[in-house]
Amino acid sequence: MEIKRFHENPLIKPSDVKPYYIDHEVIGVFNAGVAKYKNETVLLLRIAERPLNTNPNTVKVSFFDFEKEDGKLTIVELDKNDDRYDFSDPRSIYFRDSRRIAYLTSISYIRMARSKDGRHFDIDDKPLIYPENNQESWGMEDPRVTQIGDTYYIQYSSVSPNGIGVGLISTKNFTDFKRHGLMLHPQNKDVAIFPEKINGKYYALHRPVPKEIGTPDIWLAESDNLMYWGNHQFLLGVSENSWENGRIGGGAVPIRTEKGWLAIYHAADKNDRYCLGALLLDLNDPSKILAKTNEPILEPEAPYEKEGFFGNVVFTCGIIEDGDDITIYYGAADEYIAGAVVSLKEIMSKLTS
Amino acid sequence: MEIKRFHENPLIKPSDVKPYYIDHEVIGVFNAGVAKYKNETVLLLRIAERPLNTNPNTVKVSFFDFEKEDGKLTIVELDKNDDRYDFSDPRSIYFRDSRRIAYLTSISYIRMARSKDGRHFDIDDKPLIYPENNQESWGMEDPRVTQIGDTYYIQYSSVSPNGIGVGLISTKNFTDFKRHGLMLHPQNKDVAIFPEKINGKYYALHRPVPKEIGTPDIWLAESDNLMYWGNHQFLLGVSENSWENGRIGGGAVPIRTEKGWLAIYHAADKNDRYCLGALLLDLNDPSKILAKTNEPILEPEAPYEKEGFFGNVVFTCGIIEDGDDITIYYGAADEYIAGAVVSLKEIMSKLTS
Repeated sequence: MEIKRFHENPLIKPSDVKPYYIDHEVIGVFNAGVAKYKNETVLLLRIAERPLNTNPNTVKVSFFDFEKEDGKLTIVELDKNDDRYDFSDPRSIYFRDSRRIAYLTSISYIRMARSKDGRHFDIDDKPLIYPENNQESWGMEDPRVTQIGDTYYIQYSSVSPNGIGVGLISTKNFTDFKRHGLMLHPQNKDVAIFPEKINGKYYALHRPVPKEIGTPDIWLAESDNLMYWGNHQFLLGVSENSWENGRIGGGAVPIRTEKGWLAIYHAADKNDRYCLGALLLDLNDPSKILAKTNEPILEPEAPYEKEGFFGNVVFTCGIIEDGDDITIYYGAADEYIAGAVVSLKEIMSKLTS
Repeated sequence: MEIKRFHENPLIKPSDVKPYYIDHEVIGVFNAGVAKYKNETVLLLRIAERPLNTNPNTVKVSFFDFEKEDGKLTIVELDKNDDRYDFSDPRSIYFRDSRRIAYLTSISYIRMARSKDGRHFDIDDKPLIYPENNQESWGMEDPRVTQIGDTYYIQYSSVSPNGIGVGLISTKNFTDFKRHGLMLHPQNKDVAIFPEKINGKYYALHRPVPKEIGTPDIWLAESDNLMYWGNHQFLLGVSENSWENGRIGGGAVPIRTEKGWLAIYHAADKNDRYCLGALLLDLNDPSKILAKTNEPILEPEAPYEKEGFFGNVVFTCGIIEDGDDITIYYGAADEYIAGAVVSLKEIMSKLTS
C-alpha cells in the first residue's frame, strides 16, 4: 500500500501540551476525533494525564470521585509490591485474581487543536470536554466526530468503575455542548456514526466486548434519533489473519464513495500490535460487507509508531477526504498524533470481495 | 418473609414435555415469561433440550447451523477427555485456556402453557418460538413478556457464538409474531420492559456483563419505540451482602404500586446460589431507587429448588398481580417451573430505603 506519512510526524506530542490538572503530567496526546469546522481541520485530542510521582516503588493513579467527593480529582498511591495488583500493562492495573481492571494508569479528557493546513496545529490551553458525571469518572477516551447537517456528534468511550460505555455529546460550535447520556451500554467502544441517514435510518459501527461468549468484533446498530440504538447485527469478526486475530473495531467515521461506504477500521493481533484496514459496505444496506483489505493499509513501522507509551500501535478515529486524497489522522504508540495521506483509488484497488 | 409455595409445586417438570427435536430429550422447563391472555394465565416456558447420548465418555451438544447448513440442527460429540474443554459446569462447556464458553450443553426455545387457575397448565405440543436466524443459533432463553395495550413484547436472551444479546418479538395473539432484532447488544440479558410509558418514554431494566471493568449489575435504559434503546444508566450493583455478591439482574416485569414501581429481581452469590429480592423505583423517574429488600423474598429451600439440573436456584421472569396477591412464577434448579404467592403488603413492609 502506497501511504505517505507526513514528514512533520509526530504532529503533536505530549510535551506540546500543558497539563491541566494540578500535580499531573501529560503522557499521551492520541486517538483524536477529526472534523472540518470554519475552514479549519479540528482535532478532538484524547489527552491522558497522570499524577506526578518521584517514588519508584509506587504507582499513582487519579480519578474523579463523584460518589463521595462531589467530583473531586482524587489521587491514590499504590505500592508496586501489593500483590493484589498486576502492574505489567502500562495502560491499566489489573486485579491479579480476576483479570478485571482495578485502575487506569491515566485519566483522559478531550482537548481541541485547530489547523489551516492540516499539518500544523494550535492546541487549546484548556480541555474542551472533561469528565462531569459518575459515568465519566475514569475518563473520556477515543472520540469520533460525525457531522450531520450543522451539528457535530461526538462519540467517546465513557469510562467508570461501572464499565466502559459509549457517550454521545452534540455541538454546533465547539463551545456549547449537549450531553445525551450513554448511547451504548458497557462494554462497548469504538463507535463511528455514519454521516447521513440510509433508507431513513442512522447507522453506527460499534465494538462490544462480551465476557463469556464471543470476541471483540465489529457490530452495526441503527437508530432514528442518534440517542437510542437497536437492531444490533454482527458485522465483522476477528479472523485467523495474524494482523487481526486479537480484536477488531471501528475506526474513522465511514465516508460515502461511488462503490460503497468506506470504513477505515483497526485490528490488533494477539500481541496487541494495532494496524488499520478498510471495509467497503453496501451504500443502501451497511450490514452487507462488499469487500475488505486483506493486508493492513497502515501498520506500525515508523519509530514513533513502534516505540512510545504503548508501542506498535496505529489507531485512527477520523479521516479527512479531499478529492482522491484521504488524510488519516491517527494515534501512534498511544502517545502521539500522526498523519498520513493515501489515495482513495489505491485503497479501493486493494479491496477484495 | 411470609411466602406460600404452591402445594402443586413443581408445576411443570421436564417429563411433562415431549421433546420436539429428533434424538433429543427435555432436561429443563424453567424461567418462563408470564402474561394474562384471554382470561388465562399463560407461561412462555424456556424448554432446554439436549441430544440423547448413551456413551458415558462423551458429551453431545447441538445448535442450529445457519452459517453452513441453512439452519439445520447439528449435533457435535465431544470426548470428555479432550483437555481443550472444561466440562465441570452442567450448563456450559468452557474453553479451558480462556474461560470463554465453547458450547452450551442444551439448546433452548420457547413453548406455551395455558391455565385457567394459574396452577394447572396445559402445555402446547410444539414450540411457540424457536431459533430462526444466526443470532439465535445457540438458542432463545429466559423470556419476559410485557403487555402494552393489546400487544405483548417478548424479550429474550438471543444466544449465538457471537454473543448473548437481547432479542425482541411482538405479538397480539401468540400466533403471529414479529421479530424486531436485537434491542441490546452482547453481552446482555435479563431485560424487563416496564408496562407503560413514564413521562413519555419507555424504560427497561437490563443486565450487561462487561469483561474488563465492572460487574454483572442492573442498568436502566430508555426508548421511544421499544426497538431502539439509549441513555443507559447504572442502577444497582452487586453488594457485599452474601446473597447478592456475585451477580444481580432484572427478574419480573415491574408493576406499578401506589408507592413506586415494584421490581422483583434476582441475585446470586459467589457460589451461584440464586435468590429473589425486591426493588422500589420512583414512579416518575425509575432511575431513582426508593427502597429495596435487604433479605431475599424467596430463596432455595424446597427440594425441587435445592436439587435439580443446577441446584440452589430460584429465578423469576414474571409475576401475576391480583389485588394484594402477587403470584411469582419461577424457575427452580434450572429444571422446573414453580409458583408461590406473597402479599404485596408483606413485600412492601420489608423494603428499606
